[in-house]
Amino acid sequence: CLAYFKSGNQVPRDLWSQVWDSMKEIEKATGQFFGNSSSPLLVSVRSGAAVSMPGMMDTVLNLGINQQVAEGIAQRTGNMRFALDLYRRFIQMYGQVVMGVDGSQFDEVMQDHERKSKLDGNAQLGPDDLNSVITNFKGIINKATGADVPEDPFIQLKNATVAVFDSWNTRRAVDYRNHYGISHDMGTAVNIVAMVYGNIDEMSGSGVCFSRNPATGEKKLFGEYLANAQGEDIVSGTATPSDISQLAIDMPDVYTQLVDSALVLERYYSDVQDIEFTVERGKFYLLQTRAAQRSPRAAVKTAVDMAEEGLISKDQAILRVNPTQIYNLLVPRLDEAAEEQARSEGRLLSIGMGASPGGATGKLVFDPDTAQRLGQQGISVILARPETSPEDMHGMLASAGILTSRGGTTSHAAVVARGLGKPCITGAESISVNTVAGTIQCGDMIASEGDEISIDGTSGEVFVGAIATIQPRISEETDMVKLLSWADEVRVLGVWANADYPRDVELALEFGAEGIGLCRTEHMFFEPERLDLVRKMILAAHDCNETPDEDCDQDFHTALDQLEKYQMDDFEGIFRVMKGRPAVIRLLDPPLHEFLPNYEELFEEVITLRLNGNDPETLLEKENLLNQLKDMREVNPMLGLRGCRLGLKFPAIYEMQVRAIVAAACNIVREGGAVHPEIMVPLVSHGNEMRLLRENLENTIQSYLKDRDCTLDYKIGTMIEVPRAALTADEIAETAEFFSFGTNDLTQTTYGYSRDDAEGKFLMNYLKKGIIPEDPFQALDRDGVGELIKIGVKLGKQTRPDLTIGICGEHGGDPSSIEFCHIVGLDYVSCSPYRVPVARLAAAQAALNLPKE
Amino acid sequence: CLAYFKSGNQVPRDLWSQVWDSMKEIEKATGQFFGNSSSPLLVSVRSGAAVSMPGMMDTVLNLGINQQVAEGIAQRTGNMRFALDLYRRFIQMYGQVVMGVDGSQFDEVMQDHERKSKLDGNAQLGPDDLNSVITNFKGIINKATGADVPEDPFIQLKNATVAVFDSWNTRRAVDYRNHYGISHDMGTAVNIVAMVYGNIDEMSGSGVCFSRNPATGEKKLFGEYLANAQGEDIVSGTATPSDISQLAIDMPDVYTQLVDSALVLERYYSDVQDIEFTVERGKFYLLQTRAAQRSPRAAVKTAVDMAEEGLISKDQAILRVNPTQIYNLLVPRLDEAAEEQARSEGRLLSIGMGASPGGATGKLVFDPDTAQRLGQQGISVILARPETSPEDMHGMLASAGILTSRGGTTSHAAVVARGLGKPCITGAESISVNTVAGTIQCGDMIASEGDEISIDGTSGEVFVGAIATIQPRISEETDMVKLLSWADEVRVLGVWANADYPRDVELALEFGAEGIGLCRTEHMFFEPERLDLVRKMILAAHDCNETPDEDCDQDFHTALDQLEKYQMDDFEGIFRVMKGRPAVIRLLDPPLHEFLPNYEELFEEVITLRLNGNDPETLLEKENLLNQLKDMREVNPMLGLRGCRLGLKFPAIYEMQVRAIVAAACNIVREGGAVHPEIMVPLVSHGNEMRLLRENLENTIQSYLKDRDCTLDYKIGTMIEVPRAALTADEIAETAEFFSFGTNDLTQTTYGYSRDDAEGKFLMNYLKKGIIPEDPFQALDRDGVGELIKIGVKLGKQTRPDLTIGICGEHGGDPSSIEFCHIVGLDYVSCSPYRVPVARLAAAQAALNLPKE
Repeated sequence: CLAYFKSGNQVPRDLWSQVWDSMKEIEKATGQFFGNSSSPLLVSVRSGAAVSMPGMMDTVLNLGINQQVAEGIAQRTGNMRFALDLYRRFIQMYGQVVMGVDGSQFDEVMQDHERKSKLDGNAQLGPDDLNSVITNFKGIINKATGADVPEDPFIQLKNATVAVFDSWNTRRAVDYRNHYGISHDMGTAVNIVAMVYGNIDEMSGSGVCFSRNPATGEKKLFGEYLANAQGEDIVSGTATPSDISQLAIDMPDVYTQLVDSALVLERYYSDVQDIEFTVERGKFYLLQTRAAQRSPRAAVKTAVDMAEEGLISKDQAILRVNPTQIYNLLVPRLDEAAEEQARSEGRLLSIGMGASPGGATGKLVFDPDTAQRLGQQGISVILARPETSPEDMHGMLASAGILTSRGGTTSHAAVVARGLGKPCITGAESISVNTVAGTIQCGDMIASEGDEISIDGTSGEVFVGAIATIQPRISEETDMVKLLSWADEVRVLGVWANADYPRDVELALEFGAEGIGLCRTEHMFFEPERLDLVRKMILAAHDCNETPDEDCDQDFHTALDQLEKYQMDDFEGIFRVMKGRPAVIRLLDPPLHEFLPNYEELFEEVITLRLNGNDPETLLEKENLLNQLKDMREVNPMLGLRGCRLGLKFPAIYEMQVRAIVAAACNIVREGGAVHPEIMVPLVSHGNEMRLLRENLENTIQSYLKDRDCTLDYKIGTMIEVPRAALTADEIAETAEFFSFGTNDLTQTTYGYSRDDAEGKFLMNYLKKGIIPEDPFQALDRDGVGELIKIGVKLGKQTRPDLTIGICGEHGGDPSSIEFCHIVGLDYVSCSPYRVPVARLAAAQAALNLPKE
Repeated sequence: CLAYFKSGNQVPRDLWSQVWDSMKEIEKATGQFFGNSSSPLLVSVRSGAAVSMPGMMDTVLNLGINQQVAEGIAQRTGNMRFALDLYRRFIQMYGQVVMGVDGSQFDEVMQDHERKSKLDGNAQLGPDDLNSVITNFKGIINKATGADVPEDPFIQLKNATVAVFDSWNTRRAVDYRNHYGISHDMGTAVNIVAMVYGNIDEMSGSGVCFSRNPATGEKKLFGEYLANAQGEDIVSGTATPSDISQLAIDMPDVYTQLVDSALVLERYYSDVQDIEFTVERGKFYLLQTRAAQRSPRAAVKTAVDMAEEGLISKDQAILRVNPTQIYNLLVPRLDEAAEEQARSEGRLLSIGMGASPGGATGKLVFDPDTAQRLGQQGISVILARPETSPEDMHGMLASAGILTSRGGTTSHAAVVARGLGKPCITGAESISVNTVAGTIQCGDMIASEGDEISIDGTSGEVFVGAIATIQPRISEETDMVKLLSWADEVRVLGVWANADYPRDVELALEFGAEGIGLCRTEHMFFEPERLDLVRKMILAAHDCNETPDEDCDQDFHTALDQLEKYQMDDFEGIFRVMKGRPAVIRLLDPPLHEFLPNYEELFEEVITLRLNGNDPETLLEKENLLNQLKDMREVNPMLGLRGCRLGLKFPAIYEMQVRAIVAAACNIVREGGAVHPEIMVPLVSHGNEMRLLRENLENTIQSYLKDRDCTLDYKIGTMIEVPRAALTADEIAETAEFFSFGTNDLTQTTYGYSRDDAEGKFLMNYLKKGIIPEDPFQALDRDGVGELIKIGVKLGKQTRPDLTIGICGEHGGDPSSIEFCHIVGLDYVSCSPYRVPVARLAAAQAALNLPKE
């Protein structure tokens, strides 16, 4: 029986009269009375958010108890241990949730008593132990807060209700919502439910089960059961429960009821169910059912299976899978041969439960703050904890993998990790996790904080040291391939990939890319054997710009000629793989100083040489280089001499690049192959830039084609990546045959955010405070950047109705941004190869959910 | 008689048939024949651009002559010297203009011959001398070009016509048009005119005169006359002519005709005329008349005078003055007392003609390239030349003042300098300008390149060393005051000023500002006694952000408290001067590291200390500071932690500032004074930033007002300076009571240009190549930035119809930008105090020229 109070972010005004009225109804239905010691009703107070946030919101169980009521329960049930266990549980939970006392102190007291009790030969704590525990708990609470747990059940209820409402705004809940892009305004409801007791005797117990396997998606009941316990004991991971199959042996009738209920619920909700139940003296109670959090693999498999079972339609199957989950299915796993090798070297530390699949290698860390700090620095870390709690959320988000020594496959760690698509091992009980010493130990094997360890979230194996990871092949993911083929049937948006090398292009095509939306030619410049040439070219260009003479001119052109050969090979490699699909090649974009030696290091070298005074020759040489670098430095390189501004200042560079493109393409044509290069000019902010460059480039191309007697199908277009380009897209489209929105830079210039500086300096703080709802570098900002995109599309098509328009910023792989691209009618999104499957699914979902504007 | 061929930037197709046809008509009218030696017709070929670009376009005089024709002329006139002088002039001019030979070689030959001839006791060169000169000239040309001046008059005509068309695209012409914002597309026409000869005898001559004085505006004929000369001799400054009054004595009839013509022409065109004339054997010919270039003072005076004479209306008077000229009227002049002092110290080098008023002190330079280089570095330079030519334009633009030893007040130097509003002295003949040695010398006084000299463009005095300049008072400029009062009657836009200190505010009000549109609080932070406090505050804030503790917290707040007192005094000073007019005070904007010591210098110090190793204590201290600086450095500071991002990260800073504002205002209120502060939040890009800050600031203000029992009229608003702010102005206007477009930053982010980097690295190049028509940091870019302003205005007023909207970037003082502000319906423009009169006039012109959209 249940009282339900919905709220926004504000508690409803008439809350208390609702509560008292509802309590009356609960009393009527149960025949028991709240706060009454002769026929006592206990309740649980739990949150009921409209969105599933498992483990994020607070709950208080066994509420309504005090010394007197406990005695009443003991009397009524004739079970003093049971009554005191309830009282102990209540004090502990209320102390933690409502009064904010650190839970680890309670755990220590419990563990002390359990150890002592075991030594005395008892399986569980007796009434005396529990009384001692309760006294201890009360002492801890009073010391920590200066107050006591209220005796009055109604005050307990009032405080607990407020605490559950408030838990909407805890850090863990906010972190969780930020991560999943759930609105903070939604708010929660509070449920008040009469208690049933799994901890009353051995014919009682609590369990959690899933209608299908949430890790693999296998169509088979999956779950856990713990006799003589409350559900909290399982969920918190403080005890390790039995497999659900044990229930079939212990209480076959109950098991049958559970199986039947799971089937009915799954059919009713058309989705995999996560069910909590309690058995009280052999009687089966369903406590809660909700859509199950599942691993990416399970999400895909269950969606495909259910569609093929006819339980849902193909469209529903497409909508059922979160596109970012797809990405996780393609994440690396540990290389099996390397694992075998590690085993033979004795590096296998322990085996726990494989709670979330995938493999990871990283530095061992023990607290979520360290995990977050290192993770943000790009360091791969594995977070090890005895168990995790919602407070660890930020550390889990930042970790490559999670390892706990306690808890089962439905514990907090397991559920969260599966949702995040991160490998996780739980219940590795042979491992002793010492968070103070910063070690994990199994027998005499030990790993310390900062050491590398590897975990296999499928097998549950924990290894000392690094193990190579391998990339799954999409072709082996038959369910995913099926789901994506359904997605391809409904999506309107094309999905292209950003790829710079033939090997990336191959991967992108394997993942289903239909074109290359961005090939960054400058990445090729960074390869060691070429960097030297690039530097020579840049320094000569700079010198010639200062004082033109034949020397620098010759150096410049010699370097360029050599680079042209390299670039031609690069492009030919890409065109060969593309087999005539469109490939957008962007001309040189970054500021030239990015290719030069580090200024500060050189500066230090020069000062040191100057002070030493013993090597005037080297000093002179380094000083010259330093001066060149100094000339080229910029205050705001992001807004400086780069992109087409370079191309206009040093026309020979772009001419070299287009000659290389055309030459490579003509090589393919000569062999009878198909090729479709699209040449993209970066950072245009004025129609004249495009006009002038186009003229130059066309001259170069046409003269090459004429000389070599080659016919070629190609396009010349531009990126739209500064606001002015979007605002004057009509003019730019006069000489640009295609647009590609470079939303990384467009976001930077629209907001006035330097991505390099913003993240650490203020953006994280903005997100935390909710000043901006989402990181605009991850999810496209529809109000600002999106408005410019709309303007750009409208003006561009006004001039050139057949203009091809895509997007090639990182947003091209983000589902919410893809939805926006669909709405505004772009032709394609382009993203990194690994995001291509994500984009295919997200594009399909956008097409199903939304009409094109 | 005249043939006129208009062209765009392309020569008309049927040009040559037009030329031949027109030539027939000229022959018919003059009774002479082109290319004929017995009745020879000579013509001049000159440009006739639709826009006045004096001295910028090429001319070829005396065209149609060759050895044979020269002999014919000698025969017909009986004057061999005259015929040969014509031939010499033609060869020289054709060689220079059409064949591109460096003119100084011709000058040297002429000077050699003139010297020799004078030694021989001759006033002018005789036929033998001239024959020798001609032979010399032909040799020079052949050596320089490998070709000869064509003998065939028709080929001469053809080539000269093409050369004149081509002179539209010379560097000087492009520079000139860029400077005056004249479109490069306009193109020129070419005139072919029959020659009359001022150099035929002593009853002949050439002159240039202005219907009113172009330097002072005085209503009196002003000009110069040179007997037995062609106009070129005056315009080029190679000879120093007599004052026009001499003509009244020499040829009273001609003088009367000139005076009458000037009057008629002025009435006809309703404007001051610049008239070229020639007298041939006592017969008066008008060659050309055009609106006169005039000094700023003359422009204002003649406009006001002509309006009061009833020649034009007040509105016409307003439209007659170029607003930027107003600015020049308020430019500094040399301090008279300091001049007197310099005279008494014997620092007066020489006196030339005061050709363009105003005073300047600067480093002496001799070539335009050096002038440009130093000028761009912000160094004040005075360009000294024997005479200037159109090739020197870029150097003149970059100089603070111009000095020539030759030429009169209508020479190239004088005309250009007046147009630019720069002080200029011409014809300082006692000075020998040695451009090779890099000296100017008069007697035994000498100044070398790089020495400081001062020039007084009104008195014509040249001083060695620096002389203090003083600022004219607008109240003394009675004509300007009158014109501006007429302007105030018609303008719709308000004119406010950007001012940071009470002294600036006073100046702004004197110039007619109606409010302060931007008071940059951070400028106050840079004053020496405060900078230390500011640094303490910043370093403490940084430390506390890394690891919060009581020490840094206390340091932070101690520094802030002390700054608050300073700021309160600052604001009180401003409010007192403002007497209740609106004053917009912007909260702290720049990145904090701008207030800290230079990173690179400190880096060098640390490395040196490290290598020396003898002062570990200082090393440690400096290293610590260096690390703090390193933490605070940004890759793109322009797009980093600044503006309201700072205010949200360190709320105490803005709270301190608004407390200081409110406290200062309350001090005024307490005394019964009027005060109207408007608090402006910088760099908002999201409505939530404004919402949150407004909440905080309102709390601070309200609590202060309540504590002190003070009632205050104030506003809180924001700058719109990143594209996203304009695009989401509806949301921002929910909590902002006013907008001020910060068009400097808005231009940077809209284009993706860093102003610090763009100018030197590519923007100048863009302007030169015409890729962008105008520097968007000077004239507001209507297509891009302007579009965002339109969007911002529309959305802002949608939310808040009574929203006050202004502009406070540098564009607020630029006439074309002011016109745009008028069109889009802004409430006011705000600019630097000196630009306030400019803005008043420009706003009036906008109102007269254009309807409000």
